[in-house]
Amino acid sequence: MSHEMLTDLYEFSMANGYYQTLPHDKQASFDVFYRNAPDEDSFVLSAGLMQIIEEVKNWHFTKEDIDYLRALNKFSDEFLTFLKDAKNKCTINAMTEGTPLLPREPILTISGPLIEVQLLETLVLNIFNHQSLIATKAWQITHAAQGRAVMEFGARRAQGPDAATYGARAAVIGGCTSTSNVLAGQKFNIPVAGTMAHAWIESFPDELTAFKAWAKIYPDTASLLVDTYDVVKSGVPNAIKVFQELKAQGHRPLSIRIDSGDITRLAKKARQMFDDAGLSEVKITASNALDAHIVKSLLNEEAPIDNFGIGERLITSSSSPVLSGVYKMSALENKGQWVPKIKISNSREKITLPGNKQVYRLYSRNDPKHAFADIIALADEKLRDKITAIDSDVHATNDVVTLTDFTARPLLHQVLAGQKAAPIETDTFAIQKYAKEQIAELPKETKRLVNPDHYPVYLTKKLADLQKKLIAEYK
Amino acid sequence: MSHEMLTDLYEFSMANGYYQTLPHDKQASFDVFYRNAPDEDSFVLSAGLMQIIEEVKNWHFTKEDIDYLRALNKFSDEFLTFLKDAKNKCTINAMTEGTPLLPREPILTISGPLIEVQLLETLVLNIFNHQSLIATKAWQITHAAQGRAVMEFGARRAQGPDAATYGARAAVIGGCTSTSNVLAGQKFNIPVAGTMAHAWIESFPDELTAFKAWAKIYPDTASLLVDTYDVVKSGVPNAIKVFQELKAQGHRPLSIRIDSGDITRLAKKARQMFDDAGLSEVKITASNALDAHIVKSLLNEEAPIDNFGIGERLITSSSSPVLSGVYKMSALENKGQWVPKIKISNSREKITLPGNKQVYRLYSRNDPKHAFADIIALADEKLRDKITAIDSDVHATNDVVTLTDFTARPLLHQVLAGQKAAPIETDTFAIQKYAKEQIAELPKETKRLVNPDHYPVYLTKKLADLQKKLIAEYK
Repeated sequence: MSHEMLTDLYEFSMANGYYQTLPHDKQASFDVFYRNAPDEDSFVLSAGLMQIIEEVKNWHFTKEDIDYLRALNKFSDEFLTFLKDAKNKCTINAMTEGTPLLPREPILTISGPLIEVQLLETLVLNIFNHQSLIATKAWQITHAAQGRAVMEFGARRAQGPDAATYGARAAVIGGCTSTSNVLAGQKFNIPVAGTMAHAWIESFPDELTAFKAWAKIYPDTASLLVDTYDVVKSGVPNAIKVFQELKAQGHRPLSIRIDSGDITRLAKKARQMFDDAGLSEVKITASNALDAHIVKSLLNEEAPIDNFGIGERLITSSSSPVLSGVYKMSALENKGQWVPKIKISNSREKITLPGNKQVYRLYSRNDPKHAFADIIALADEKLRDKITAIDSDVHATNDVVTLTDFTARPLLHQVLAGQKAAPIETDTFAIQKYAKEQIAELPKETKRLVNPDHYPVYLTKKLADLQKKLIAEYK
Repeated sequence: MSHEMLTDLYEFSMANGYYQTLPHDKQASFDVFYRNAPDEDSFVLSAGLMQIIEEVKNWHFTKEDIDYLRALNKFSDEFLTFLKDAKNKCTINAMTEGTPLLPREPILTISGPLIEVQLLETLVLNIFNHQSLIATKAWQITHAAQGRAVMEFGARRAQGPDAATYGARAAVIGGCTSTSNVLAGQKFNIPVAGTMAHAWIESFPDELTAFKAWAKIYPDTASLLVDTYDVVKSGVPNAIKVFQELKAQGHRPLSIRIDSGDITRLAKKARQMFDDAGLSEVKITASNALDAHIVKSLLNEEAPIDNFGIGERLITSSSSPVLSGVYKMSALENKGQWVPKIKISNSREKITLPGNKQVYRLYSRNDPKHAFADIIALADEKLRDKITAIDSDVHATNDVVTLTDFTARPLLHQVLAGQKAAPIETDTFAIQKYAKEQIAELPKETKRLVNPDHYPVYLTKKLADLQKKLIAEYK
C-alpha cells in the first residue's frame, strides 16, 4: 500500500500555491535531520530508508485521490491535472539504514521540483521518525543485554498494525534477534519466536498436564511459561518433570519463560533447581515490561537470564516516544542556479545549515576502525588533508579546531532518481550487522546508557561561513 | 488491508496445540479490559471497534500465508488445512466506540472456537490499545481547551502511517475538530485543516510577498504563519497589511498561527495589534509541542487563543504512550456447558473476573442524566431493584454496598456473529457526539486533569462469589 495521501493538508495548499505562483519546475533541496536524540542517547540509529524509497519511487495519485482533493474546493483544476499525471522526479541522497546519525546531520537530502518535494515531507518524516526511534531504542536495550538474545514481543501494545510490523523490522536493525509478530517475520524474513500464554495452561485441568501436552507437540522447541500459579513451587518443578521425560526420549529441553514476580530472585532459584536436576542446558527467558535500564539492573544483580522478551517499552519507545526529525529547505533553484537557503530562529540551535551538503565520518589515520568525529561540508567541497572546522554544537566555547591525520568517509549516497532506485541492502540482518560495525567504530564513552559523551560534529569553515553570511543578510 | 498475520507466534503455536489436543470446536470466551488508565485519568475512552469488526469479519488466510506458516516447520498439516479454509465463527459483544470505560470492565467479549479466539488476540489488542489510547489523550486535551477547536496535527511524528491515520480518527472521537492528515480526512470523512509551513515564506524574497501570494490564492481561507522571522516586529504587522487589503476587497480575514516563542505573551500582543487595527475577527491558532497541561496553563494565563493545533503529544500520547489492555479467558466450554475460568495471580488486582459478563452503567432514578457507578454482572443475571454490590477496587475497605433507586443501562451489545455484523455507528462525528454525551453523564470530579476522583465500579454479589469460589478451588 502506498501513502501519497498521508500528507498534511498544508503541503497540498503550498504545492497548489507554488503551482500558481512559481515556475512549475522550480527546483528545491530539503534536508531531513533531528536536533535531539530520544532518551539521553548521543546518536540515533537510522532506519526507514527502504520504505521511504518504495513510497517515493511509486508516488502517484489515483482518480479517487484527485476526486477527493477536488471536493475540498481549495485547489485549482490545473494543479489537480498536474497531480493526476505526476510521477516522482525527485532525487534522494541518504545514509544507509543502520548508520549512527548525529544531531543536525542530514540523514537524507531530497532534491526535485519544489511542488513534489513539498508533498513528500509528511510521509518521509513519518517513516524516518518512527523507524529510527524504534531502531535506536532497540540498540539501547540490546546494548544493555550484553550479547544475550533480545526478542521483540510488543505487537499487542504497538501504536497500530504498521507500528507493530515496521517497528519489529526496526527493532531487528537495532539488534533484536527475532520478533513474535508473524506478519513482520513473513514480510521481512525475520525469525519468529515465542513460548505460550497463560491461556494455554488454563485450558487444561492443571499445569503439568498443560506442559506435557505442549512437550508432546513441540518436543524439540518446548519453551514453558512457568509463572501461571507459582514459579518455584509449581512451574519449575513441573518443567523439570517434563524436560527430564523429553531428555529420556532423546529430545532437547529448551527453555522456560518468567513473566512476573521478582525476576532476579526467581531466575536464580530456577537456575539452581534446573542445575540440581541435571538440566543445565535449559535456558531462562525473562519478559514483563522490561527496558534498557531494567535489563542492565538485572544483569548487574547477576540474574542468570539467557534471553529477554521485550514488549511495549521497545515497540513504542515508551520512555521517549517521539523522534522529532524535521524537513527543512536547504537550497532553492533560481534561473538554473542553486541559491542556499536558511531558516532563521531566535534560538541559535534552530538555525538551519544552508546549501546542498555531504556528511563525512572521520577516522584516525593510525586507527582506521576508530571514528572520532563527523564533519558536515558543502556538497561541492573537497576535504583537504588539514582542515579548519567549527563545532556544530552551539554551546561549544572552543569552537574552532584544526583536523589532520584522518581519513574521511562520505555517508550520503544517491539511492533514488525519479523511478530509478540504486540497489540498497534490504536484508534485515545484513543491515543489523552493518549497524553493529558502525556503532563499534564510535568511541565507547558515547555509548553509555546514562550521560553519554558528546560525539563531535563539525562544520567545514566554508559551510560555517555561508551560514554566517546568510544570517547577516537577514539582519 | 487485513492483518490476520499480525499475530504473535505463540498464538499460532497454541492454536496448533489446541487443534491436536482438544475438540476442534471447543468454545471459549475472552474479555478485553485494562487495569490502569494512561496518565492519571479515571477512565479510557473506547475506540477501535470499527476496525476490529472489519478485521474479524473478513479474517482469513491466503495461500501465501499458509505457505509461510508451513515453512516454519512448526505446525501440523491438518492444522494448516484447517486454517486455509477458516472463516470467522466468533461472536463479539462490545461497547460502542466513544464509551468511557473503567478499569476491569470488559470493553469487548469474544466467544467462539478456542482456536480462532486465540488467533485474534494480538490484532484485537493492538487496535483497541492504540485507538483507545489516542481517543483518551484527545479527550484530555479537548477538555483542557474548554470548547476551543483542537486540530490534530501529528502525522509526521506518529509511529508509522496507520498510527497517523487511525490515530487521527481516534483523536476526532476524543473531541478534535479536524486533522491535518489528508488520508485520514479522505478515509474517515473528517475535515482537513492547516495553514502553511515556514518553507512557503522562505520560497519568496520576503514575508510580506509570501503572505500576499498566499492571500491571492486563498482569499477567504488565508491562515498566516507569523513566526518565521519575528512575530511582533514582522509577522503580525505583515498579516495586518494583508488582511486589511483582503477586507477592502470584500474577503474575510481568517487567522494567524504562532508556532514558537512564548505563546501567551505573543498571542496577547498579536490580539491587541489586530484589535487596534480593526481586525478583531482574526483568530489566533497556537501550535508547537502542546499537551493538555500546557493548553490549560495558557488558558489560565488568559492567552487569547481561539484554536489549538496539537501534534506529537497527541498522536503518540507521549506522556503515557501505552494502554495495556489485556485479553483474558473468562469461560471455556466443556461438553456443551460453559465453565467459568479465572487467572490467579499473587497480586489481587491481577486476578481476573470469571464467566461471561455484562457491564451496566447505573443512573440515579431522580437524575437520569447522572451516572454514579458501573456494575459488572454475570451475563445471565437479572439486576434487581435493590442489589448488594462489591467494590471492584481491591484497595477499597468499605467494599460491600447496597444500591437502590437506579436505572441500569447495559453497555455490551452484540456487534458481530460470524460473517454477520450488526449495524454500528461509523460516522466519526456521530461517535464524537456520543462520546461527549457519555462523558457529560460522569461526575465532574472524575474528569479532573490531575488527581481525578475514582468512579466506582462494582461487582454483583453473584460475580464476586463466583470469583471467591474459583480462588478457593485453586488453593
